[in-house]
Amino acid sequence: MTPRGIYAAALTPFARDLQIDTERLIRHCRDVLVRGCDGVSLFGTTGEANSLAVAERTAALERVVDAGIAPQRLMPGTGCCALPDTIALTHHALALGVTAVLVLPPFYYKNPSDEGLFDAYAHIIETVADDRLRMYLYHIPQFSGVPLSIALVERLRAAYPRTVVGIKDSSGDFANAQALCALGDFGVFIGAERLIVKTLDLGGAGTICALANIVPETLADLYARRSAPEAAALQARVCAQLDVLDRFGFIGALKALLAARDAAQDWQTVRPPLRALASAQHAALHAAFDGLALTT
Amino acid sequence: MTPRGIYAAALTPFARDLQIDTERLIRHCRDVLVRGCDGVSLFGTTGEANSLAVAERTAALERVVDAGIAPQRLMPGTGCCALPDTIALTHHALALGVTAVLVLPPFYYKNPSDEGLFDAYAHIIETVADDRLRMYLYHIPQFSGVPLSIALVERLRAAYPRTVVGIKDSSGDFANAQALCALGDFGVFIGAERLIVKTLDLGGAGTICALANIVPETLADLYARRSAPEAAALQARVCAQLDVLDRFGFIGALKALLAARDAAQDWQTVRPPLRALASAQHAALHAAFDGLALTT
Repeated sequence: MTPRGIYAAALTPFARDLQIDTERLIRHCRDVLVRGCDGVSLFGTTGEANSLAVAERTAALERVVDAGIAPQRLMPGTGCCALPDTIALTHHALALGVTAVLVLPPFYYKNPSDEGLFDAYAHIIETVADDRLRMYLYHIPQFSGVPLSIALVERLRAAYPRTVVGIKDSSGDFANAQALCALGDFGVFIGAERLIVKTLDLGGAGTICALANIVPETLADLYARRSAPEAAALQARVCAQLDVLDRFGFIGALKALLAARDAAQDWQTVRPPLRALASAQHAALHAAFDGLALTT
Repeated sequence: MTPRGIYAAALTPFARDLQIDTERLIRHCRDVLVRGCDGVSLFGTTGEANSLAVAERTAALERVVDAGIAPQRLMPGTGCCALPDTIALTHHALALGVTAVLVLPPFYYKNPSDEGLFDAYAHIIETVADDRLRMYLYHIPQFSGVPLSIALVERLRAAYPRTVVGIKDSSGDFANAQALCALGDFGVFIGAERLIVKTLDLGGAGTICALANIVPETLADLYARRSAPEAAALQARVCAQLDVLDRFGFIGALKALLAARDAAQDWQTVRPPLRALASAQHAALHAAFDGLALTT
Protein backbone atom coordinates (compact mmCIF):
# COMPACT_ATOMS: atom_id res chain seq x y z
CA MET A 1 0.00 0.00 0.00
CA THR A 2 1.46 3.32 -1.06
CA PRO A 3 0.84 5.95 1.63
CA ARG A 4 -1.65 8.55 0.46
CA GLY A 5 -4.24 10.88 1.93
CA ILE A 6 -4.61 12.10 5.50
CA TYR A 7 -2.11 10.96 8.10
CA ALA A 8 -2.42 12.13 11.68
CA ALA A 9 0.87 13.39 13.11
CA ALA A 10 -0.14 11.70 16.31
CA LEU A 11 0.23 13.29 19.71
CA THR A 12 1.88 11.09 22.32
CA PRO A 13 -0.23 10.86 25.49
CA PHE A 14 1.66 10.77 28.77
CA ALA A 15 0.61 9.85 32.28
CA ARG A 16 1.22 12.45 34.94
CA ASP A 17 4.63 10.85 35.69
CA LEU A 18 5.66 11.62 32.08
CA GLN A 19 5.59 7.96 31.01
CA ILE A 20 3.88 7.16 27.70
CA ASP A 21 0.27 6.14 28.25
CA THR A 22 0.30 3.38 25.68
CA GLU A 23 -3.31 2.36 26.13
CA ARG A 24 -4.43 5.90 25.44
CA LEU A 25 -2.10 6.05 22.43
CA ILE A 26 -3.67 2.91 20.99
CA ARG A 27 -7.17 4.30 21.53
CA HIS A 28 -6.10 7.53 19.89
CA CYS A 29 -4.71 5.77 16.83
CA ARG A 30 -7.92 3.76 16.46
CA ASP A 31 -9.99 6.91 16.91
CA VAL A 32 -8.35 8.92 14.15
CA LEU A 33 -8.38 5.94 11.77
CA VAL A 34 -12.05 5.19 12.41
CA ARG A 35 -12.85 8.86 11.90
CA GLY A 36 -11.29 9.02 8.46
CA CYS A 37 -7.53 9.16 8.59
CA ASP A 38 -5.72 7.00 6.08
CA GLY A 39 -2.78 6.52 8.39
CA VAL A 40 -0.99 7.57 11.54
CA SER A 41 2.48 9.01 11.73
CA LEU A 42 3.66 8.29 15.26
CA PHE A 43 6.74 9.99 16.70
CA GLY A 44 7.02 13.15 14.71
CA THR A 45 7.39 16.68 16.00
CA THR A 46 3.78 16.78 17.24
CA GLY A 47 4.38 13.43 18.94
CA GLU A 48 7.31 14.78 20.96
CA ALA A 49 9.43 12.03 19.42
CA ASN A 50 12.73 13.62 20.25
CA SER A 51 11.70 13.80 23.88
CA LEU A 52 11.43 9.98 23.94
CA ALA A 53 14.19 7.44 24.44
CA VAL A 54 14.69 4.79 21.76
CA ALA A 55 13.40 2.05 24.06
CA GLU A 56 10.22 4.02 24.74
CA ARG A 57 9.60 4.40 21.03
CA THR A 58 10.15 0.74 20.22
CA ALA A 59 7.98 -0.44 23.13
CA ALA A 60 5.13 1.87 22.19
CA LEU A 61 5.24 0.96 18.50
CA GLU A 62 5.17 -2.73 19.39
CA ARG A 63 2.12 -2.26 21.57
CA VAL A 64 0.34 -0.28 18.85
CA VAL A 65 0.96 -3.02 16.27
CA ASP A 66 0.11 -5.78 18.76
CA ALA A 67 -3.16 -4.01 19.44
CA GLY A 68 -4.15 -4.56 15.83
CA ILE A 69 -3.36 -1.24 14.17
CA ALA A 70 -2.34 -2.30 10.66
CA PRO A 71 1.41 -1.79 10.09
CA GLN A 72 0.63 -0.52 6.57
CA ARG A 73 -1.29 2.37 8.11
CA LEU A 74 1.69 3.56 10.16
CA MET A 75 4.55 5.87 9.27
CA PRO A 76 6.60 6.36 12.44
CA GLY A 77 9.40 8.85 12.72
CA THR A 78 12.73 7.09 13.13
CA GLY A 79 15.28 9.88 12.52
CA CYS A 80 17.53 10.86 15.43
CA CYS A 81 20.74 12.82 15.87
CA ALA A 82 22.71 9.61 16.35
CA LEU A 83 22.68 7.31 13.35
CA PRO A 84 22.80 4.12 15.46
CA ASP A 85 19.49 5.22 17.00
CA THR A 86 17.95 5.90 13.60
CA ILE A 87 19.13 2.53 12.35
CA ALA A 88 17.82 0.72 15.43
CA LEU A 89 14.40 2.36 15.15
CA THR A 90 14.16 1.72 11.41
CA HIS A 91 15.18 -1.95 11.80
CA HIS A 92 12.67 -2.34 14.58
CA ALA A 93 9.83 -0.83 12.54
CA LEU A 94 10.60 -3.17 9.63
CA ALA A 95 10.67 -6.16 11.96
CA LEU A 96 7.07 -5.28 12.90
CA GLY A 97 6.08 -5.01 9.24
CA VAL A 98 6.07 -1.21 9.32
CA THR A 99 7.85 -0.38 6.09
CA ALA A 100 7.16 3.37 5.69
CA VAL A 101 9.20 5.58 8.01
CA LEU A 102 9.75 9.32 8.30
CA VAL A 103 13.38 10.23 8.77
CA LEU A 104 14.77 13.48 10.14
CA PRO A 105 18.36 14.26 9.22
CA PRO A 106 20.84 14.22 12.11
CA PHE A 107 20.05 17.66 13.50
CA TYR A 108 22.64 18.72 16.06
CA TYR A 109 25.32 20.04 13.71
CA LYS A 110 24.02 23.03 11.81
CA ASN A 111 24.94 23.90 8.22
CA PRO A 112 26.08 20.40 7.33
CA SER A 113 27.03 19.96 3.70
CA ASP A 114 24.70 18.17 1.30
CA GLU A 115 27.48 15.60 0.99
CA GLY A 116 27.42 15.03 4.76
CA LEU A 117 23.64 14.67 4.79
CA PHE A 118 23.83 12.31 1.83
CA ASP A 119 26.39 10.26 3.77
CA ALA A 120 24.00 10.12 6.72
CA TYR A 121 20.99 8.90 4.77
CA ALA A 122 23.11 6.52 2.70
CA HIS A 123 24.60 5.03 5.86
CA ILE A 124 21.13 4.45 7.32
CA ILE A 125 19.79 2.86 4.12
CA GLU A 126 22.82 0.67 3.55
CA THR A 127 23.07 -0.47 7.15
CA VAL A 128 19.36 -1.26 7.40
CA ALA A 129 19.70 -3.06 4.05
CA ASP A 130 16.07 -4.05 3.67
CA ASP A 131 14.35 -3.92 0.27
CA ARG A 132 11.01 -3.34 1.96
CA LEU A 133 12.11 0.02 3.39
CA ARG A 134 10.12 3.00 2.10
CA MET A 135 11.80 6.12 3.42
CA TYR A 136 10.12 9.50 3.62
CA LEU A 137 12.53 12.34 4.28
CA TYR A 138 11.46 14.85 6.93
CA HIS A 139 12.01 18.51 6.04
CA ILE A 140 11.16 20.71 9.03
CA PRO A 141 13.92 23.30 9.22
CA GLN A 142 12.18 25.45 11.84
CA PHE A 143 12.75 22.66 14.39
CA SER A 144 15.61 20.59 13.00
CA GLY A 145 17.66 23.60 11.95
CA VAL A 146 18.78 21.39 9.04
CA PRO A 147 16.91 21.95 5.77
CA LEU A 148 16.95 19.29 3.07
CA SER A 149 17.74 20.94 -0.25
CA ILE A 150 16.03 19.92 -3.47
CA ALA A 151 19.44 18.96 -4.83
CA LEU A 152 19.96 16.59 -1.89
CA VAL A 153 16.52 15.06 -2.37
CA GLU A 154 17.25 14.51 -6.06
CA ARG A 155 20.58 12.94 -5.29
CA LEU A 156 19.10 10.56 -2.71
CA ARG A 157 16.30 9.54 -5.09
CA ALA A 158 18.79 8.88 -7.85
CA ALA A 159 20.93 6.72 -5.59
CA TYR A 160 18.08 4.85 -3.87
CA PRO A 161 15.05 5.07 -6.18
CA ARG A 162 13.14 2.17 -4.58
CA THR A 163 13.79 3.34 -1.02
CA VAL A 164 13.65 7.14 -0.98
CA VAL A 165 10.06 7.42 -2.15
CA GLY A 166 8.81 10.63 -0.58
CA ILE A 167 9.11 13.49 1.83
CA LYS A 168 7.17 15.32 4.49
CA ASP A 169 7.57 19.03 3.88
CA SER A 170 6.69 20.95 7.05
CA SER A 171 8.56 24.08 6.10
CA GLY A 172 5.42 26.01 5.23
CA ASP A 173 7.28 27.32 2.17
CA PHE A 174 5.01 26.63 -0.80
CA ALA A 175 7.78 27.20 -3.33
CA ASN A 176 9.60 24.26 -1.77
CA ALA A 177 6.51 22.05 -1.95
CA GLN A 178 6.11 23.05 -5.62
CA ALA A 179 9.69 22.06 -6.38
CA LEU A 180 9.21 18.72 -4.63
CA CYS A 181 5.99 17.98 -6.52
CA ALA A 182 7.73 18.90 -9.75
CA LEU A 183 10.19 16.05 -9.21
CA GLY A 184 7.37 13.73 -10.30
CA ASP A 185 6.52 10.26 -8.99
CA PHE A 186 7.54 11.28 -5.48
CA GLY A 187 5.29 11.02 -2.42
CA VAL A 188 5.06 14.59 -1.20
CA PHE A 189 3.19 14.93 2.09
CA ILE A 190 2.60 18.47 3.18
CA GLY A 191 2.98 19.22 6.86
CA ALA A 192 1.53 22.72 6.82
CA GLU A 193 -2.25 22.39 6.94
CA ARG A 194 -2.68 25.74 5.16
CA LEU A 195 -1.15 24.29 1.99
CA ILE A 196 -3.08 21.04 1.73
CA VAL A 197 -5.32 21.86 -1.24
CA LYS A 198 -2.58 23.72 -3.10
CA THR A 199 -0.21 20.78 -2.68
CA LEU A 200 -2.82 18.19 -3.66
CA ASP A 201 -3.53 20.25 -6.79
CA LEU A 202 0.10 19.75 -7.77
CA GLY A 203 -0.12 15.99 -7.31
CA GLY A 204 0.97 15.81 -3.68
CA ALA A 205 0.37 12.48 -1.95
CA GLY A 206 -1.43 13.96 1.03
CA THR A 207 -0.79 15.51 4.38
CA ILE A 208 0.76 14.37 7.63
CA CYS A 209 -0.63 16.92 10.01
CA ALA A 210 -1.29 17.72 13.63
CA LEU A 211 -4.82 18.98 13.13
CA ALA A 212 -5.87 15.43 12.22
CA ASN A 213 -5.53 14.55 15.92
CA ILE A 214 -8.60 16.58 16.72
CA VAL A 215 -10.67 16.99 13.53
CA PRO A 216 -9.88 13.97 11.37
CA GLU A 217 -13.31 14.13 9.67
CA THR A 218 -12.70 17.69 8.52
CA LEU A 219 -9.43 16.68 6.90
CA ALA A 220 -10.83 13.48 5.41
CA ASP A 221 -13.64 15.54 3.94
CA LEU A 222 -11.16 18.06 2.57
CA TYR A 223 -9.16 15.27 0.96
CA ALA A 224 -12.24 13.61 -0.54
CA ARG A 225 -13.49 16.90 -2.00
CA ARG A 226 -10.11 18.34 -2.89
CA SER A 227 -11.11 18.83 -6.53
CA ALA A 228 -14.69 19.87 -5.82
CA PRO A 229 -15.94 23.48 -5.90
CA GLU A 230 -16.19 23.53 -2.08
CA ALA A 231 -12.47 22.68 -1.58
CA ALA A 232 -11.53 26.33 -1.04
CA ALA A 233 -14.19 26.76 1.64
CA LEU A 234 -13.09 23.58 3.42
CA GLN A 235 -9.47 24.73 3.27
CA ALA A 236 -10.51 28.07 4.77
CA ARG A 237 -12.18 26.25 7.64
CA VAL A 238 -9.00 24.29 8.30
CA CYS A 239 -7.04 27.55 8.30
CA ALA A 240 -9.43 29.05 10.87
CA GLN A 241 -8.88 26.06 13.15
CA LEU A 242 -5.14 26.42 12.73
CA ASP A 243 -5.27 30.09 13.63
CA VAL A 244 -6.76 29.14 17.00
CA LEU A 245 -4.16 26.46 17.69
CA ASP A 246 -1.30 28.75 16.66
CA ARG A 247 -2.59 31.41 19.00
CA PHE A 248 -2.67 29.05 22.00
CA GLY A 249 0.49 27.03 21.31
CA PHE A 250 0.11 24.04 19.10
CA ILE A 251 0.87 20.86 21.06
CA GLY A 252 -0.37 22.22 24.39
CA ALA A 253 -3.59 23.43 22.78
CA LEU A 254 -4.27 20.13 20.99
CA LYS A 255 -3.70 18.20 24.20
CA ALA A 256 -5.96 20.57 26.13
CA LEU A 257 -8.76 20.00 23.60
CA LEU A 258 -8.39 16.23 23.85
CA ALA A 259 -8.26 16.42 27.65
CA ALA A 260 -11.60 18.20 27.61
CA ARG A 261 -13.11 15.87 25.02
CA ASP A 262 -12.09 12.74 26.95
CA ALA A 263 -12.50 14.28 30.42
CA ALA A 264 -8.94 13.11 31.02
CA GLN A 265 -6.63 15.70 32.55
CA ASP A 266 -3.60 13.48 31.92
CA TRP A 267 -3.97 14.20 28.20
CA GLN A 268 -2.55 17.64 28.95
CA THR A 269 0.80 16.30 30.07
CA VAL A 270 3.75 17.21 27.86
CA ARG A 271 7.43 16.53 28.40
CA PRO A 272 9.74 19.47 29.14
CA PRO A 273 10.79 21.76 27.56
CA LEU A 274 7.18 21.95 26.36
CA ARG A 275 4.55 23.20 28.79
CA ALA A 276 0.90 22.36 29.13
CA LEU A 277 -1.58 25.10 28.29
CA ALA A 278 -1.91 27.46 31.25
CA SER A 279 -5.18 26.84 33.07
CA ALA A 280 -6.17 30.48 32.66
CA GLN A 281 -6.18 29.94 28.88
CA HIS A 282 -8.48 26.93 28.75
CA ALA A 283 -11.73 28.84 28.70
CA ALA A 284 -10.51 31.10 25.88
CA LEU A 285 -9.26 28.13 23.84
CA HIS A 286 -12.53 26.29 24.17
CA ALA A 287 -14.50 29.43 23.37
CA ALA A 288 -12.41 29.93 20.25
CA PHE A 289 -13.10 26.36 19.18
CA ASP A 290 -16.85 26.66 19.75
CA GLY A 291 -18.68 25.87 16.59
CA LEU A 292 -16.09 23.39 15.36
CA ALA A 293 -17.18 19.80 14.91
CA LEU A 294 -15.24 18.04 17.68
CA THR A 295 -17.06 14.78 17.21
CA THR A 296 -16.20 12.36 20.01
CA MET B 1 37.93 18.73 43.51
CA THR B 2 36.29 21.79 41.96
CA PRO B 3 36.86 21.81 38.20
CA ARG B 4 39.20 24.59 37.16
CA GLY B 5 41.73 25.36 34.44
CA ILE B 6 42.08 23.75 31.04
CA TYR B 7 39.69 21.01 30.02
CA ALA B 8 40.02 19.35 26.64
CA ALA B 9 36.70 19.11 24.79
CA ALA B 10 37.84 15.69 23.65
CA LEU B 11 37.47 14.44 20.13
CA THR B 12 35.96 10.97 19.82
CA PRO B 13 38.13 8.67 17.68
CA PHE B 14 36.32 6.24 15.44
CA ALA B 15 37.45 3.17 13.57
CA ARG B 16 36.78 3.14 9.83
CA ASP B 17 33.49 1.31 10.49
CA LEU B 18 32.31 4.35 12.54
CA GLN B 19 32.54 2.50 15.88
CA ILE B 20 34.22 4.33 18.77
CA ASP B 21 37.90 3.37 19.03
CA THR B 22 37.93 3.20 22.81
CA GLU B 23 41.60 2.31 23.12
CA ARG B 24 42.55 5.37 21.14
CA LEU B 25 40.15 7.47 23.20
CA ILE B 26 41.83 6.30 26.41
CA ARG B 27 45.29 7.06 25.01
CA HIS B 28 44.06 10.48 23.91
CA CYS B 29 42.66 11.31 27.38
CA ARG B 30 45.96 10.27 28.96
CA ASP B 31 47.90 12.29 26.42
CA VAL B 32 46.13 15.60 27.01
CA LEU B 33 46.23 15.13 30.79
CA VAL B 34 49.95 14.31 30.80
CA ARG B 35 50.59 17.32 28.60
CA GLY B 36 48.97 19.79 30.96
CA CYS B 37 45.20 19.62 30.83
CA ASP B 38 43.43 19.74 34.16
CA GLY B 39 40.57 17.65 32.90
CA VAL B 40 38.79 16.12 29.96
CA SER B 41 35.26 16.84 28.87
CA LEU B 42 34.17 13.83 26.87
CA PHE B 43 31.05 13.89 24.71
CA GLY B 44 30.61 17.53 23.93
CA THR B 45 30.10 19.12 20.54
CA THR B 46 33.73 18.48 19.52
CA GLY B 47 33.30 14.88 20.68
CA GLU B 48 30.35 14.31 18.33
CA ALA B 49 28.33 13.33 21.40
CA ASN B 50 24.96 13.73 19.75
CA SER B 51 26.07 11.37 17.01
CA LEU B 52 26.52 8.61 19.62
CA ALA B 53 23.86 6.33 21.09
CA VAL B 54 23.43 6.29 24.87
CA ALA B 55 24.88 2.77 25.13
CA GLU B 56 27.97 3.85 23.20
CA ARG B 57 28.52 6.75 25.57
CA THR B 58 28.12 4.67 28.72
CA ALA B 59 30.38 1.90 27.43
CA ALA B 60 33.13 4.33 26.43
CA LEU B 61 32.98 6.26 29.72
CA GLU B 62 33.22 3.01 31.64
CA ARG B 63 36.29 1.95 29.70
CA VAL B 64 37.95 5.33 30.23
CA VAL B 65 37.39 5.17 34.00
CA ASP B 66 38.41 1.49 34.14
CA ALA B 67 41.62 2.43 32.36
CA GLY B 68 42.55 4.59 35.30
CA ILE B 69 41.59 8.10 34.18
CA ALA B 70 40.55 9.75 37.46
CA PRO B 71 36.77 10.35 37.57
CA GLN B 72 37.42 13.75 39.19
CA ARG B 73 39.24 14.81 36.03
CA LEU B 74 36.26 14.09 33.81
CA MET B 75 33.28 16.25 32.87
CA PRO B 76 31.28 14.29 30.30
CA GLY B 77 28.38 15.76 28.40
CA THR B 78 25.12 14.05 29.39
CA GLY B 79 22.47 16.35 27.91
CA CYS B 80 20.22 14.92 25.20
CA CYS B 81 16.92 15.85 23.56
CA ALA B 82 15.13 13.15 25.51
CA LEU B 83 15.19 13.62 29.28
CA PRO B 84 15.24 9.85 29.98
CA ASP B 85 18.53 9.71 28.06
CA THR B 86 19.98 12.65 29.99
CA ILE B 87 18.92 11.06 33.26
CA ALA B 88 20.36 7.68 32.31
CA LEU B 89 23.71 9.19 31.30
CA THR B 90 23.92 11.36 34.42
CA HIS B 91 23.06 8.42 36.71
CA HIS B 92 25.64 6.32 34.95
CA ALA B 93 28.37 8.94 35.31
CA LEU B 94 27.66 9.28 39.03
CA ALA B 95 27.76 5.52 39.46
CA LEU B 96 31.32 5.65 38.11
CA GLY B 97 32.25 8.44 40.52
CA VAL B 98 32.08 11.09 37.80
CA THR B 99 30.20 13.88 39.57
CA ALA B 100 30.72 16.85 37.21
CA VAL B 101 28.65 16.72 34.06
CA LEU B 102 27.92 19.16 31.24
CA VAL B 103 24.26 19.31 30.33
CA LEU B 104 22.76 20.61 27.09
CA PRO B 105 19.13 21.65 27.27
CA PRO B 106 16.69 19.49 25.29
CA PHE B 107 17.35 21.00 21.89
CA TYR B 108 14.77 19.87 19.37
CA TYR B 109 11.99 22.34 20.16
CA LYS B 110 13.12 25.87 19.38
CA ASN B 111 12.10 28.95 21.36
CA PRO B 112 11.09 27.02 24.47
CA SER B 113 10.09 29.20 27.41
CA ASP B 114 12.45 29.72 30.33
CA GLU B 115 9.81 27.95 32.41
CA GLY B 116 9.95 24.94 30.10
CA LEU B 117 13.75 24.82 30.26
CA PHE B 118 13.62 25.20 34.03
CA ASP B 119 11.17 22.25 34.13
CA ALA B 120 13.62 20.20 32.06
CA TYR B 121 16.67 20.82 34.27
CA ALA B 122 14.59 20.48 37.45
CA HIS B 123 13.23 17.14 36.24
CA ILE B 124 16.75 15.87 35.55
CA ILE B 125 18.10 17.02 38.92
CA GLU B 126 15.16 15.73 40.92
CA THR B 127 15.03 12.39 39.15
CA VAL B 128 18.77 11.81 39.44
CA ALA B 129 18.45 12.85 43.12
CA ASP B 130 22.13 12.58 44.01
CA ASP B 131 23.77 15.13 46.32
CA ARG B 132 27.10 14.51 44.64
CA LEU B 133 25.90 15.85 41.30
CA ARG B 134 27.71 18.95 40.08
CA MET B 135 25.92 20.19 37.00
CA TYR B 136 27.46 22.53 34.45
CA LEU B 137 24.93 24.00 32.05
CA TYR B 138 25.94 23.98 28.37
CA HIS B 139 25.22 27.19 26.46
CA ILE B 140 26.02 26.72 22.78
CA PRO B 141 23.14 28.29 20.88
CA GLN B 142 24.84 28.09 17.47
CA PHE B 143 24.45 24.29 17.61
CA SER B 144 21.66 23.65 20.11
CA GLY B 145 19.47 26.45 18.79
CA VAL B 146 18.37 26.85 22.41
CA PRO B 147 20.17 29.63 24.31
CA LEU B 148 20.19 29.61 28.12
CA SER B 149 19.26 33.08 29.36
CA ILE B 150 20.97 34.69 32.34
CA ALA B 151 17.56 34.80 34.05
CA LEU B 152 17.21 31.03 33.62
CA VAL B 153 20.71 30.42 34.96
CA GLU B 154 19.94 32.57 38.01
CA ARG B 155 16.69 30.77 38.61
CA LEU B 156 18.33 27.33 38.40
CA ARG B 157 21.13 28.37 40.78
CA ALA B 158 18.61 29.74 43.26
CA ALA B 159 16.62 26.52 43.20
CA TYR B 160 19.58 24.11 43.21
CA PRO B 161 22.57 26.01 44.65
CA ARG B 162 24.64 22.91 45.48
CA THR B 163 23.97 21.23 42.14
CA VAL B 164 23.96 23.91 39.45
CA VAL B 165 27.51 25.09 40.02
CA GLY B 166 28.65 26.34 36.66
CA ILE B 167 28.27 26.69 32.94
CA LYS B 168 30.16 26.24 29.74
CA ASP B 169 29.59 29.29 27.56
CA SER B 170 30.43 28.46 23.96
CA SER B 171 28.42 31.30 22.45
CA GLY B 172 31.47 33.42 21.69
CA ASP B 173 29.49 36.40 22.99
CA PHE B 174 31.74 38.10 25.54
CA ALA B 175 28.88 40.15 27.01
CA ASN B 176 27.22 36.88 27.98
CA ALA B 177 30.41 35.57 29.61
CA GLN B 178 30.70 38.85 31.53
CA ALA B 179 27.15 38.53 32.82
CA LEU B 180 27.81 34.95 33.89
CA CYS B 181 31.03 35.85 35.70
CA ALA B 182 29.19 38.72 37.41
CA LEU B 183 26.88 36.19 39.05
CA GLY B 184 29.78 35.43 41.39
CA ASP B 185 30.81 32.07 42.86
CA PHE B 186 29.79 30.29 39.65
CA GLY B 187 32.12 28.09 37.65
CA VAL B 188 32.20 29.77 34.25
CA PHE B 189 34.12 27.80 31.63
CA ILE B 190 34.55 29.60 28.36
CA GLY B 191 34.22 27.53 25.22
CA ALA B 192 35.50 30.14 22.77
CA GLU B 193 39.29 29.98 22.87
CA ARG B 194 39.54 33.62 21.77
CA LEU B 195 38.03 34.74 25.07
CA ILE B 196 40.10 32.70 27.50
CA VAL B 197 42.24 35.45 29.01
CA LYS B 198 39.40 37.98 29.09
CA THR B 199 37.18 35.48 30.89
CA LEU B 200 39.86 34.41 33.36
CA ASP B 201 40.43 38.11 34.13
CA LEU B 202 36.80 38.26 35.25
CA GLY B 203 37.21 35.27 37.54
CA GLY B 204 36.18 32.56 35.10
CA ALA B 205 36.96 29.00 36.18
CA GLY B 206 38.76 28.07 32.99
CA THR B 207 38.09 26.79 29.51
CA ILE B 208 36.67 23.65 28.02
CA CYS B 209 37.98 23.85 24.52
CA ALA B 210 38.66 21.92 21.36
CA LEU B 211 42.13 23.33 20.77
CA ALA B 212 43.33 21.45 23.88
CA ASN B 213 43.10 18.25 21.85
CA ILE B 214 46.09 19.27 19.81
CA VAL B 215 48.08 21.87 21.75
CA PRO B 216 47.37 21.19 25.44
CA GLU B 217 50.76 22.67 26.48
CA THR B 218 49.98 25.98 24.83
CA LEU B 219 46.73 26.24 26.73
CA ALA B 220 48.23 25.07 30.03
CA ASP B 221 50.93 27.69 29.58
CA LEU B 222 48.32 30.34 28.83
CA TYR B 223 46.42 29.38 31.97
CA ALA B 224 49.53 29.40 34.15
CA ARG B 225 50.63 32.81 32.88
CA ARG B 226 47.14 34.31 32.56
CA SER B 227 48.07 37.26 34.80
CA ALA B 228 51.60 37.66 33.50
CA PRO B 229 52.67 40.35 30.99
CA GLU B 230 52.99 37.73 28.25
CA ALA B 231 49.34 36.60 28.55
CA ALA B 232 48.24 38.76 25.61
CA ALA B 233 50.93 37.32 23.36
CA LEU B 234 50.00 33.77 24.34
CA GLN B 235 46.33 34.52 23.69
CA ALA B 236 47.25 35.91 20.27
CA ARG B 237 49.06 32.68 19.47
CA VAL B 238 45.97 30.67 20.41
CA CYS B 239 43.89 32.91 18.17
CA ALA B 240 46.24 32.29 15.25
CA GLN B 241 45.86 28.53 15.74
CA LEU B 242 42.11 28.92 15.84
CA ASP B 243 42.08 30.90 12.64
CA VAL B 244 43.68 27.97 10.88
CA LEU B 245 41.22 25.45 12.30
CA ASP B 246 38.24 27.66 11.48
CA ARG B 247 39.46 27.98 7.94
CA PHE B 248 39.69 24.22 7.43
CA GLY B 249 36.61 23.13 9.44
CA PHE B 250 37.09 22.53 13.08
CA ILE B 251 36.51 18.86 13.89
CA GLY B 252 37.75 17.57 10.55
CA ALA B 253 40.87 19.72 10.79
CA LEU B 254 41.67 18.61 14.36
CA LYS B 255 41.23 14.98 13.43
CA ALA B 256 43.43 15.41 10.34
CA LEU B 257 46.21 16.91 12.50
CA LEU B 258 46.01 14.01 14.96
CA ALA B 259 45.93 11.49 12.12
CA ALA B 260 49.20 12.95 10.84
CA ARG B 261 50.77 13.16 14.30
CA ASP B 262 49.91 9.53 15.14
CA ALA B 263 50.33 8.23 11.57
CA ALA B 264 46.83 6.80 12.01
CA GLN B 265 44.44 7.47 9.14
CA ASP B 266 41.50 6.20 11.22
CA TRP B 267 41.76 9.34 13.35
CA GLN B 268 40.21 11.20 10.44
CA THR B 269 36.95 9.31 10.65
CA VAL B 270 33.92 11.37 11.62
CA ARG B 271 30.29 10.35 11.78
CA PRO B 272 27.86 11.82 9.25
CA PRO B 273 26.67 14.52 8.82
CA LEU B 274 30.26 15.66 9.45
CA ARG B 275 32.86 14.98 6.79
CA ALA B 276 36.56 14.29 7.06
CA LEU B 277 38.89 16.95 5.71
CA ALA B 278 39.17 16.58 1.93
CA SER B 279 42.49 15.02 1.02
CA ALA B 280 43.32 17.95 -1.24
CA GLN B 281 43.31 20.21 1.83
CA HIS B 282 45.71 18.24 3.99
CA ALA B 283 48.89 19.79 2.65
CA ALA B 284 47.52 23.31 3.09
CA LEU B 285 46.35 22.57 6.64
CA HIS B 286 49.71 21.17 7.65
CA ALA B 287 51.52 24.05 6.01
CA ALA B 288 49.37 26.50 7.94
CA PHE B 289 50.18 24.70 11.17
CA ASP B 290 53.93 24.67 10.49
CA GLY B 291 55.75 26.39 13.24
CA LEU B 292 53.24 25.37 15.89
CA ALA B 293 54.47 23.15 18.69
CA LEU B 294 52.66 19.90 17.99
CA THR B 295 54.65 17.95 20.56
CA THR B 296 53.89 14.27 20.32
